[in-house]
Amino acid sequence: MIRLVTAGESHGPQLTIILEGMPAGLSLDEDLIRADLARRQIALGAGGRMSIETDRAAIVGGVLAGRTTGAPVALAIANANHEAWKGKSVPAYTTPRPGHADFAAAVKYGYDDVRPALERASARETASRVAAGACCRAMLGEFGIAVEGRVVALGGAPCDGADETSVALIEQTRKEGETLGGVIEVVTKGLPVGLGSHVSADRRLDARLAAAVMSIPAIKGVEIGDGFALAAMKGTETRGRMGGLAGGITDGDPLVVRAAMKPIPTTLKPQSTVDLATGEPAQTVYERSDVCPVPRAVVVVEAAVCLVLADALAEKLGGDSLGEMKARFAQLPSTCRLSPSAKTFWS
Amino acid sequence: MIRLVTAGESHGPQLTIILEGMPAGLSLDEDLIRADLARRQIALGAGGRMSIETDRAAIVGGVLAGRTTGAPVALAIANANHEAWKGKSVPAYTTPRPGHADFAAAVKYGYDDVRPALERASARETASRVAAGACCRAMLGEFGIAVEGRVVALGGAPCDGADETSVALIEQTRKEGETLGGVIEVVTKGLPVGLGSHVSADRRLDARLAAAVMSIPAIKGVEIGDGFALAAMKGTETRGRMGGLAGGITDGDPLVVRAAMKPIPTTLKPQSTVDLATGEPAQTVYERSDVCPVPRAVVVVEAAVCLVLADALAEKLGGDSLGEMKARFAQLPSTCRLSPSAKTFWS
Amino acid sequence: MIRLVTAGESHGPQLTIILEGMPAGLSLDEDLIRADLARRQIALGAGGRMSIETDRAAIVGGVLAGRTTGAPVALAIANANHEAWKGKSVPAYTTPRPGHADFAAAVKYGYDDVRPALERASARETASRVAAGACCRAMLGEFGIAVEGRVVALGGAPCDGADETSVALIEQTRKEGETLGGVIEVVTKGLPVGLGSHVSADRRLDARLAAAVMSIPAIKGVEIGDGFALAAMKGTETRGRMGGLAGGITDGDPLVVRAAMKPIPTTLKPQSTVDLATGEPAQTVYERSDVCPVPRAVVVVEAAVCLVLADALAEKLGGDSLGEMKARFAQLPSTCRLSPSAKTFWS
Amino acid sequence: MIRLVTAGESHGPQLTIILEGMPAGLSLDEDLIRADLARRQIALGAGGRMSIETDRAAIVGGVLAGRTTGAPVALAIANANHEAWKGKSVPAYTTPRPGHADFAAAVKYGYDDVRPALERASARETASRVAAGACCRAMLGEFGIAVEGRVVALGGAPCDGADETSVALIEQTRKEGETLGGVIEVVTKGLPVGLGSHVSADRRLDARLAAAVMSIPAIKGVEIGDGFALAAMKGTETRGRMGGLAGGITDGDPLVVRAAMKPIPTTLKPQSTVDLATGEPAQTVYERSDVCPVPRAVVVVEAAVCLVLADALAEKLGGDSLGEMKARFAQLPSTCRLSPSAKTFWS
Repeated sequence: MIRLVTAGESHGPQLTIILEGMPAGLSLDEDLIRADLARRQIALGAGGRMSIETDRAAIVGGVLAGRTTGAPVALAIANANHEAWKGKSVPAYTTPRPGHADFAAAVKYGYDDVRPALERASARETASRVAAGACCRAMLGEFGIAVEGRVVALGGAPCDGADETSVALIEQTRKEGETLGGVIEVVTKGLPVGLGSHVSADRRLDARLAAAVMSIPAIKGVEIGDGFALAAMKGTETRGRMGGLAGGITDGDPLVVRAAMKPIPTTLKPQSTVDLATGEPAQTVYERSDVCPVPRAVVVVEAAVCLVLADALAEKLGGDSLGEMKARFAQLPSTCRLSPSAKTFWS
Repeated sequence: MIRLVTAGESHGPQLTIILEGMPAGLSLDEDLIRADLARRQIALGAGGRMSIETDRAAIVGGVLAGRTTGAPVALAIANANHEAWKGKSVPAYTTPRPGHADFAAAVKYGYDDVRPALERASARETASRVAAGACCRAMLGEFGIAVEGRVVALGGAPCDGADETSVALIEQTRKEGETLGGVIEVVTKGLPVGLGSHVSADRRLDARLAAAVMSIPAIKGVEIGDGFALAAMKGTETRGRMGGLAGGITDGDPLVVRAAMKPIPTTLKPQSTVDLATGEPAQTVYERSDVCPVPRAVVVVEAAVCLVLADALAEKLGGDSLGEMKARFAQLPSTCRLSPSAKTFWS
Repeated sequence: MIRLVTAGESHGPQLTIILEGMPAGLSLDEDLIRADLARRQIALGAGGRMSIETDRAAIVGGVLAGRTTGAPVALAIANANHEAWKGKSVPAYTTPRPGHADFAAAVKYGYDDVRPALERASARETASRVAAGACCRAMLGEFGIAVEGRVVALGGAPCDGADETSVALIEQTRKEGETLGGVIEVVTKGLPVGLGSHVSADRRLDARLAAAVMSIPAIKGVEIGDGFALAAMKGTETRGRMGGLAGGITDGDPLVVRAAMKPIPTTLKPQSTVDLATGEPAQTVYERSDVCPVPRAVVVVEAAVCLVLADALAEKLGGDSLGEMKARFAQLPSTCRLSPSAKTFWS
Repeated sequence: MIRLVTAGESHGPQLTIILEGMPAGLSLDEDLIRADLARRQIALGAGGRMSIETDRAAIVGGVLAGRTTGAPVALAIANANHEAWKGKSVPAYTTPRPGHADFAAAVKYGYDDVRPALERASARETASRVAAGACCRAMLGEFGIAVEGRVVALGGAPCDGADETSVALIEQTRKEGETLGGVIEVVTKGLPVGLGSHVSADRRLDARLAAAVMSIPAIKGVEIGDGFALAAMKGTETRGRMGGLAGGITDGDPLVVRAAMKPIPTTLKPQSTVDLATGEPAQTVYERSDVCPVPRAVVVVEAAVCLVLADALAEKLGGDSLGEMKARFAQLPSTCRLSPSAKTFWS
């Protein structure tokens, strides 16, 4: 069982990540993780792709002499802007933004300032998942399993990856003071037959993928294979569109997962809210955010998929060491041998 | 924490259900459960609504003198057709049906006959969830929380519940030897603010709902609020379409969850497959199934939602007894009181 | 991951057991389970061993044609005395017995009658664990792993299994209106090196064994190897007394687990309590119970150990089918090959 | 639900701790944690108490303006000796020490050098639990719950805390090149009735305490109340010796947990082993360790108890914010009100 726990706030000293249950013997270094972190930080805008931060995850546990030991892997990602915030007197934030966790979290946790909600519910947290996802991707790579995503729709327009048209659309949206959502598709190739299970709801791979992807901030929909489009087809039309899962088990086809990302509800245009300190109507205060985080979120959805698949693979093979896993992987059946014979059931 | 574990095969003696973690003091009887089970069994067809089985869940644990005790609730649903199958010699089933768990499960579990996959992956299992869901619904009802679903699209055509047009469409599909999918929407009213959490991925209510709904056989997509449609909107257009969750926490709006159900891939028309006993091409053998299980699945999706919400409510309130929960529920804040004050963060 | 969930009350219709996560392909029948259930029912008394009930677990899920399918295994054990209690009007039980769950459970769950506490906290529940344990024992047996327990102390007197001296001691205790506790030792042979792990607290096999054994009613102490005696030794004296675990991992030695069982606090002699209905001092009402359940509990402690070990073995090997597990088991290393080489750590 | 995950090696850069599920609003600062960490570092020896390291846990997540936010609390404890080890070429360690994880972990994880086992299985890891335990202790303190431990036996000799006699005994043992174990008792006062539950094995507080305490390195036995001594008593003698738990539920008495700690098997006297690189008999190489870690382990056992109790309290009360918890705590019943009335069970 591979478990991920993350901590950290967007303006705090660091993000802290513990990835528990990784097999021993996996080569892991900071450059490998940095490559995925960088993909999360490239924004599409006026000048095409522009990098806005430079994250680096320090490996602070679970790796000795460049290889995992089986002990929990600990990562720390420093927040570049922490120094500027440290010890700073920050006025209370009392005008909850519609569509954000601000209000609900404040009611839940009894905050007298919604700032703690912003700090943790922020998309900054997704850097933790990307770092952990990169470790899982490295493990999957050892088995020839490749997880690759791209934007397939932006603001309602289908696309195949984010291209020049996308850049133009994003720029136009920025000028309007608006924000843009989209759809991300992640395809995984090289999976063996038999990950996940139909026997219990919480063992199904579709359920586990749905949870992992839906837990990403701003994701409001998840599909396996042709998903909602399947619901409009007739039975014989659906063949080959199931996205690589049957009964919640990988069936040998490429695994296809799609995620719908809403536009960030924080817009340059102020929106009406209530100032919770006074009880009076108020306008939202603008917090810096992306016009269109969809291209940057591709690697986040990939990370969610990598985490679930690494866990499912370790579950199938037993997950103590990479060597042991590889030997077992080589012996997995790719088909089954059935022999016709009468059985007495329920005897 | 409320946990559901189910067991049982479609032609075995019974379905067995243990619902662990229900509070003490809840009135629970078999009629209450039977009402939901009946909804799962009403099929739409030529003559409108017709019942095809009659399920009854016997309460065999966790209830004394008509009320839950806090101990695990055990339910048993007898399979009407078990007697006919008992001790029967059943020929091996070796032609896996495309789109079903047959092949993947046989490879995974090393079956020499795919029958065990059919038996457990069958939609029969959803009766277990409906029975457990009915118990959770009863608990939610004590707090004025109502979970209600309906069909909102059938075979691609939008609808508002399954009506006469739906019956006609289903009949026509049956004549074509085809099957039909659709979209189910479940709306929950009366939820307090603050169920679920943004602080960790696996505490988010959207993730937990997505897993529960996606784990239902034939469900291939899940949305919260306007889901995939949100991905096509601009930021300022999305207000009021988030489906009652912000940051994975209930925000006081009605909770809206939608599920895409594929048409059952078992069609009257034979499909090409391989006979795994001979390795030769073969045609699928027809196993009885629904032309359109979407209307019957409404109560199943409701059950999945009820289970997640009952768990989240017990988590928020502490869940030892209904009396304790009710007293705490009455004291939940519906808003938060914020006072503007400067804070020194990260000191 | 193998999970056990149980339900049922001592005078209810049945005990219900779901054992989730068993591999496919294991031969399982009711006789095999009955053998262990019978051991739980043999009491030592005046005439030596006497049977007081006759339990039989019906397999109602997860087994087809005599073999497990990978689906959850469901068992039902009917309560012989249920018919006599059914529909019976039972006066409220309001005098909590010291040393039992009666009072604490009533406060926790808000009972207005402590009967529900008696019904579920009763040792009757251990029949569920024994039935599930028998299934796990069958699985372990396929790998040559044998789990065997015996009484090693009775009422403070060391013994080697319960013998004639024990019978005499029990008889004498019965005449005194008293009850007797003891110590049970369970030794497991044939375990491979490498079950459990030192890397995280909840993966350690010692922790998991301790939880499983301590969760048995009336168990108040658990030891691994020489346990408390080790605490009185010097370092060099301890070798060979560690009970088969090092760092929470099996090390190839026989696994030794010991459990201290208190005497049942329900004695024929009335004890002082308070009648919670009146608030007045009262005497406990005698509920039938064993003079000395220690010999009968041997198989319960074995079952707890079997459950943990079956889970740990499935975790090590991957647990989809017995065939797959056996092939992997055959390839487990019994030692490690180390080569002296300089490493740069923390690079 | 409060969850603890830890990472880090004894000579790596740091220990990393994430404590997930703490309520919002708890005052938490580094001094509070440091106090417990210091207790873990005070060794008894020739000159009485001497401090050998100085640990400090930096709070790097989950706390804003000095109070928890409900988000995961992240802590980092730097390893003082890391700089000296960094980039150092360390010869392979190939002579597994009896009684340590060395051999078993190497077989399990396929190590070609047992060093990774030493690094993670080291008692250094217990600093992580102490830091997390200090946070839980702070939470419990808000409810008037006090967790206090002491040494009750050293090398077989009963004692009441570690005193001058203990110092003399330890010094004598050191001169002999030996090591010493002992027994630690932790008593918790102020607990409400009703934490834990009898309804399922994994909800029982005794089981959860046993797991947490047994998971501490070198602990080989756990008792609740008079534990093994109870097994030698007669039923009527046991009253008042149950250690505050009945049926796995707190009953209002002080909670008493005892742990048996073996002497560290690493002694100055070399022990026979096998050099795994050559397959030849060899002598163990001495790794620095304590003559008697028992006094230092008191705070570790306290931490394990604090973690379990904080979790159980949050479970009972719902654990979103300290304010909410306190209001609910004030309304907990300390007794139950029963009314005699006939019930029809199993109707």
